[in-house]
Amino acid sequence: MQTKPILIVGSMAFDDLEFPVPVRVADGSTQTAFKDVVGGSATYSALAASAFAPVRIVAVVGADFPEPMLEVLRDRGIDTAGIERTEGLTFRWKGRYHTDLVHRDTLDTQLNVFANFRPRLAAGYGDSPLVLLGNIHPELQLEVLEQTKNPELVVVDTMNFWITGEAKTLAKLLKRTDLLIINDEEARLLSGIHNLARAAKDILSRGPKGLIIKLGEHGSLYFDAEGIFAAPALLLEHVVDPTGAGDSFAGGLLGYLAERGTYDHGDLRRAILRGTAAASFCVEAVGTLGLEALSREQVAQRVERIRHLTYVGEK
Amino acid sequence: MQTKPILIVGSMAFDDLEFPVPVRVADGSTQTAFKDVVGGSATYSALAASAFAPVRIVAVVGADFPEPMLEVLRDRGIDTAGIERTEGLTFRWKGRYHTDLVHRDTLDTQLNVFANFRPRLAAGYGDSPLVLLGNIHPELQLEVLEQTKNPELVVVDTMNFWITGEAKTLAKLLKRTDLLIINDEEARLLSGIHNLARAAKDILSRGPKGLIIKLGEHGSLYFDAEGIFAAPALLLEHVVDPTGAGDSFAGGLLGYLAERGTYDHGDLRRAILRGTAAASFCVEAVGTLGLEALSREQVAQRVERIRHLTYVGEK
Repeated sequence: MQTKPILIVGSMAFDDLEFPVPVRVADGSTQTAFKDVVGGSATYSALAASAFAPVRIVAVVGADFPEPMLEVLRDRGIDTAGIERTEGLTFRWKGRYHTDLVHRDTLDTQLNVFANFRPRLAAGYGDSPLVLLGNIHPELQLEVLEQTKNPELVVVDTMNFWITGEAKTLAKLLKRTDLLIINDEEARLLSGIHNLARAAKDILSRGPKGLIIKLGEHGSLYFDAEGIFAAPALLLEHVVDPTGAGDSFAGGLLGYLAERGTYDHGDLRRAILRGTAAASFCVEAVGTLGLEALSREQVAQRVERIRHLTYVGEK
Repeated sequence: MQTKPILIVGSMAFDDLEFPVPVRVADGSTQTAFKDVVGGSATYSALAASAFAPVRIVAVVGADFPEPMLEVLRDRGIDTAGIERTEGLTFRWKGRYHTDLVHRDTLDTQLNVFANFRPRLAAGYGDSPLVLLGNIHPELQLEVLEQTKNPELVVVDTMNFWITGEAKTLAKLLKRTDLLIINDEEARLLSGIHNLARAAKDILSRGPKGLIIKLGEHGSLYFDAEGIFAAPALLLEHVVDPTGAGDSFAGGLLGYLAERGTYDHGDLRRAILRGTAAASFCVEAVGTLGLEALSREQVAQRVERIRHLTYVGEK
């Protein structure tokens, strides 16, 4: 079976990042603030997914986006023909992490070329059997879906901003969603229910066939008609930069499913472990550094570590 | 192999509890506030452990403690000869749970007869091979240890109040601890390290051979020289009263170990699932109601549900 291609729609960005503890960099010195780090949901997801499968990106960058980074993507078999380069500056986000490396404050957001982005699928992209609609305006996510031809698997990421501000459009999107990936706070906001088991039931009744609730450092939960799966996070001693962890999770997960070509309950359980492993590589380095050379074998090794975390022998 | 007896030292109490949502009671009506609910760490731990093993309690109650509750304990094979009944009122705690049913405010604490409690082991108790030192002053926990004869397994619970206020005594106790059970906040406070993997390493270097970090609704982590185990919590749709969940967890865990009679890394993994199951029964009803008729078979059934939560097939 040939691995299926994945269409990924999302942001490509420059991130300015501030960390609570100094980070050692290539020259041996340390720094706590990093400027112009290449990021964005599409970048992280594509890098992670490309350890398994061919990827096609739909995104927009400005004139300032570095060509060498596009080379990095292409070297990993990522099709960058769908990355629109326009006049102006690339989307920019500035954030400061708290000491827990979980919570963060957004210090600045500049939409720049992202403000007028209308995703236009490059030739052949519409046939992609797997589609990841990264966290952008649900109207745009729907526009992308309109340009596809019956994808086998539609995976959707969203956030509190769209859940409260674009409820109607999001409701429409959820009816066409196979797998929704959100965090616990978003699941509670979307359902209006605090208890996660009941929140998940409510969300599944709105359309998605499957739901992943990300719990940050506590792993993730998967819900569908067949049951519940609980995945632990890998207990890392050194977390450097959580930026893009969720996007890497989605990328690793889709990569595995694309390789497998089937999407049943058991496939999803195994895919989530690949997503968890990809996310663990992401957070070990600043920006996309932990993902740029990520191999299928590295992911597999880490999956074994994750499996061992929950292993219980008989009796 | 005969199941070994467990010595449990801790509090027996009346709890006044306020919940964020109405709770249906026996007569079909609902109420949000409950007064004079029998609780205390020793009560919860003993009830859970007694599903597996004979239990001996060392605790103090006042003249107001209901004899029928002691009957309930005895009916489950719990030896109550070590429960000292003195003049005065039983220890009392009043708490109000937040809507998340995780956080809670202490509204009142009345030590009463607990203020002058010096644990005195009843005849024969000193031979107990398994000892659970519930969350009381570490000085008293040490006093109990002095009265025992080389127990095979010493399990210690403690809290932030003792970690900050009785650091020296606690340090002494930790050197004689086989298994320390605390929550994530306490682990961070005790070690001064935010990252849980590194916090655990630090704590293990202070004496305990094993460490369980409880993560509330996110399950628990176990650390020892052989590795790390991550246990999920059971995803319950209806949590009523989290009071005593941690004590029930410890009780179920010790019960299984007492039955088994060995305490290696694999035993601990399996024991933690029993503790998780016992805690899940605890939180489904107000006070000790969910534990009073708890059977070994009920625990086993729930353990299967917990195991299935993390099950991942091959490839």
